[in-house]
Amino acid sequence: MMDILHRVGIKSSLNDVYRALATLDGLAAWWTTDTQGESTSGGVIQFRFPEGGFDMKVLELRPERVLWEVVEGPEEWIGTTVSFDLKQEGDYAIILFKHQGWREPVEFMYHCSTKWATFLLSLKSLVETGKGAPSPNDVRIDNWN
Amino acid sequence: MMDILHRVGIKSSLNDVYRALATLDGLAAWWTTDTQGESTSGGVIQFRFPEGGFDMKVLELRPERVLWEVVEGPEEWIGTTVSFDLKQEGDYAIILFKHQGWREPVEFMYHCSTKWATFLLSLKSLVETGKGAPSPNDVRIDNWN
Repeated sequence: MMDILHRVGIKSSLNDVYRALATLDGLAAWWTTDTQGESTSGGVIQFRFPEGGFDMKVLELRPERVLWEVVEGPEEWIGTTVSFDLKQEGDYAIILFKHQGWREPVEFMYHCSTKWATFLLSLKSLVETGKGAPSPNDVRIDNWN
Repeated sequence: MMDILHRVGIKSSLNDVYRALATLDGLAAWWTTDTQGESTSGGVIQFRFPEGGFDMKVLELRPERVLWEVVEGPEEWIGTTVSFDLKQEGDYAIILFKHQGWREPVEFMYHCSTKWATFLLSLKSLVETGKGAPSPNDVRIDNWN
């Protein structure tokens, strides 16, 4: 089992970061504009991209932790979990991000690792400046997008 | 043992990407301007940042693979390896990046994972546009830089 890990620090309150992770409007403003479903504990959120999409079941939804399980999407993603642990350090809201449970370090995992970094920086930009870079206007990193 | 993985695709020839990975001038233009030493097989390269630095021993230096071992730097980095595997796919030179051999998934590893993504995108920008974002003008991701 292998994990993708990231850390970003956002000059803001935890509250503002949590709102961007816990609401459909927030998620649509940094990950993908095509975000629908129920961001409630036990609910399912549908994230769609030009290339496909993911359905996430919300397992935890608390100001210090958001945890999803992938219930639909690319085969490599099914059953993996995505979590955001939040804490305040001085002026910064710190996110410790983990995409956990990859069965193999396939090339798609390398791609997703880099892509997650760009989306987390989109989240940082959204909270700090009001403007993120969600799909379909996301940062291109390679020939897969 | 845990690894940091990334994938970037650069619209260029493998040669141009290799030059940015294999020469001091290339490395200084996307990772840190303060790059010295010997980028030769068996040589040691010194990378310095405002916050510290790393010495890398060059274990492999071939157009399809650059491999370094960290011989000086933060304790968590010592003995880890950093590799860049290169291949062409259509118009893109693809880099599969691996920072391998972390003993524990410490918070610093989360940070380094995100930070590597920004440096690899700096490398992409350097080769595609002529301009990277090496330290000290690198992308800030959190309160550690």
